[in-house]
Amino acid sequence: MPTSTQRLDHTLHALKALGDEGHRIFTQIYADAAREAAQAADARAARGLSLGPIDGKLVSLKDLLDVAGEVTTAGAAMRRSSTPAAHDAPVVQRLRAAGAVIIGKTNMTEFAFSGVGINPHFGTPGNAQEAERIPGGSSSGAGVSVGRGLVDIAIGSDTGGSVRIPAAFNGTVGFKPTQARVSREGAFPLSFTLDSLGPLARSVADCATADAVMAGEAPTPLPARSVRGLRIGLPQGLPWEQCSAEVLQKTEQAIESLQAQGAVFTKLPWQALMAAPGQLQSEGTIIAAEAAAIHREALAHQRDAFDPRVLSRMDKGRSLTAPYYVNLLQQRQRLQVEMDAAMQNVDLLLLPTIAITAPRIADLLEDDDAFFAANGLILRNTSIFNFYDLPALSLPAPRAAKELPVGIMLVGQRMQDRQLLAMAAAIEQLLQE
Amino acid sequence: MPTSTQRLDHTLHALKALGDEGHRIFTQIYADAAREAAQAADARAARGLSLGPIDGKLVSLKDLLDVAGEVTTAGAAMRRSSTPAAHDAPVVQRLRAAGAVIIGKTNMTEFAFSGVGINPHFGTPGNAQEAERIPGGSSSGAGVSVGRGLVDIAIGSDTGGSVRIPAAFNGTVGFKPTQARVSREGAFPLSFTLDSLGPLARSVADCATADAVMAGEAPTPLPARSVRGLRIGLPQGLPWEQCSAEVLQKTEQAIESLQAQGAVFTKLPWQALMAAPGQLQSEGTIIAAEAAAIHREALAHQRDAFDPRVLSRMDKGRSLTAPYYVNLLQQRQRLQVEMDAAMQNVDLLLLPTIAITAPRIADLLEDDDAFFAANGLILRNTSIFNFYDLPALSLPAPRAAKELPVGIMLVGQRMQDRQLLAMAAAIEQLLQE
Repeated sequence: MPTSTQRLDHTLHALKALGDEGHRIFTQIYADAAREAAQAADARAARGLSLGPIDGKLVSLKDLLDVAGEVTTAGAAMRRSSTPAAHDAPVVQRLRAAGAVIIGKTNMTEFAFSGVGINPHFGTPGNAQEAERIPGGSSSGAGVSVGRGLVDIAIGSDTGGSVRIPAAFNGTVGFKPTQARVSREGAFPLSFTLDSLGPLARSVADCATADAVMAGEAPTPLPARSVRGLRIGLPQGLPWEQCSAEVLQKTEQAIESLQAQGAVFTKLPWQALMAAPGQLQSEGTIIAAEAAAIHREALAHQRDAFDPRVLSRMDKGRSLTAPYYVNLLQQRQRLQVEMDAAMQNVDLLLLPTIAITAPRIADLLEDDDAFFAANGLILRNTSIFNFYDLPALSLPAPRAAKELPVGIMLVGQRMQDRQLLAMAAAIEQLLQE
Repeated sequence: MPTSTQRLDHTLHALKALGDEGHRIFTQIYADAAREAAQAADARAARGLSLGPIDGKLVSLKDLLDVAGEVTTAGAAMRRSSTPAAHDAPVVQRLRAAGAVIIGKTNMTEFAFSGVGINPHFGTPGNAQEAERIPGGSSSGAGVSVGRGLVDIAIGSDTGGSVRIPAAFNGTVGFKPTQARVSREGAFPLSFTLDSLGPLARSVADCATADAVMAGEAPTPLPARSVRGLRIGLPQGLPWEQCSAEVLQKTEQAIESLQAQGAVFTKLPWQALMAAPGQLQSEGTIIAAEAAAIHREALAHQRDAFDPRVLSRMDKGRSLTAPYYVNLLQQRQRLQVEMDAAMQNVDLLLLPTIAITAPRIADLLEDDDAFFAANGLILRNTSIFNFYDLPALSLPAPRAAKELPVGIMLVGQRMQDRQLLAMAAAIEQLLQE
């Protein structure tokens, strides 16, 4: 088995070979610090010591996480010359303490405010499967860094789907925890109410390990679960609308495989619960209001510095009234109680992560209408579960070599993150067979 | 000692003798249910049984608390014909289970949105000391019902001072807990962020007992504390401005008495912390924004039904923007961290509850400018500690028979409610000597 140092070298060579594309995936590379961490991990391993399952693993960080001494750009040109962070974010510090080899920071949508992954300042990394397609966002470089095998684990943030979307488009696993599980300190905010931090990786087990470390828990193996007898709900309505034939087919195949192994599926008449987040926020979203608060000064005085598409979405938040926003939060609380009660009847939900496969970058780059339509559709399913604050994971559907990746979303009960991960591991194993 | 039934009869007679004034203090009287509860308490006592220190005590409830089968008016004419509550609010149920004799519901400012206590719909109860003076609000009837000796304990709500203000003006003790301590379910809301429920009574011990029951704890005697060595902070700045000579004199006398018994006073240079809540909310308050959300429909379609002064304050909340409000909450969080750290250096704070003694009703009834000026000054000191979410208590300063009551506010560390009550009991005892 190659050492951590060998694997790091391989990635650094691969990034060099990628040329400009490498710089579109990684906004910053910490080659020296990574090498020291890899050597330390290898030295421990040679002595039979280990800091745990993360020790010596290659890890990338979305460029909204503070790393001591480095600028946190949050994908924004206006932050390129901001003051370097004084400290690691707690999740970064925890990963480092667990032996992670932090290669660098990955590109993202400006201020994490879109699911597409196009960035006019730092460039748009191509999809890991077909480079002319979008990577998905906002954790664009995170998805590509795992999808291309450059790292073992990428840390992203998910406010409306920003971990699960690049996971689905790049054929990786991506996990968004219940918000309260992982500290968001030292992560540049998009929405105080909805932001969460989660990992992307090639397996559920790696996501579970990273999540445990990020949550400050000692990583232990997931409890073994069987697919047999799992009560899986299919929430009817919105999540299945406007889905491409490819997405529907992959999802149905997964359902059939699980059914064949004894999982019990129920169609849930949850049309109202699925539609409520969008309907409630039809005049403006929680994210837009909170982002507009965070960027108040820049929205008034540095308008030219923004990605115009991010600007137009934040501007919508500026004009929302306080009572409208207060009412949103109240209605959300009420609906969360309803959803938590409904979730008691199933072990997990299954639905397409995204209604479509990754569109071509060129089709969205110049056409605002196409961009906003795609962005809305891409975020539609994932954002429902930020609203309800349920843990959710995107699992890659099995595919032939040339097929575009499709993600299957699994959703668990609130604060039952580990249980969801354990069920997802069982489902992952079955789908790979 | 008189039985609970005898004491109830005495109060019901007194209320009858008060005529219209009785109906300005109590919006609803539950004579039959109260008599049954009193008789049950007396029967228990005769057998040597007791449900605890509340058993058989006479209790009034602010008319924003749900009582099963009764209308919750929240002091608003527009709610007179609303659907009766299906259940007791949890605090009401707990008090009832602890043997409280619930006499009825007390008058309040419409929707609890003013510290003066004038109500154009249900009338304005006169101050317990001088009936031509305001009772203070918003728990106006609560303060008067205890001040006049009609009940042992009055339950109020405090969003900006609505328990402590009527306590101070009517010469009683009034306690506002840390918000999270007492469930606000079944209490008609004014501000989701700032509302809290607390008791008024003639002693700190009675307040502590009621608070424990309301918080779902078994009421136990307060730990004995000595005034000697208590580190009492005097936060400089705003709380001492525009104070009447009477208020300053009473406060200084209390300080001198405590100092003589070994309490250690420190002037705290907290000008910025004291001024911050007002400065931050100068364009509009958290309360106004949230009240405007709660009353969105009525503010659009039932404007004539409001007390015009409440209406004008809520209207200010309607035009606030969501980002402004989001920023308020974020700045509040930041300031709370600062305040919690600062509070580690003292055991409690001492300052005047209100800058003035109770003004005359007539002076405020017809003059909007005088009303709003008085309201702002009355709420100024108390509302600081709703903003910081610290437990706070108003203690009556010693006074001669004809003097108007002055309240001394004691403020504790967050979630250290019982410690504050224990220190307040020691201070109360010393001031009474």
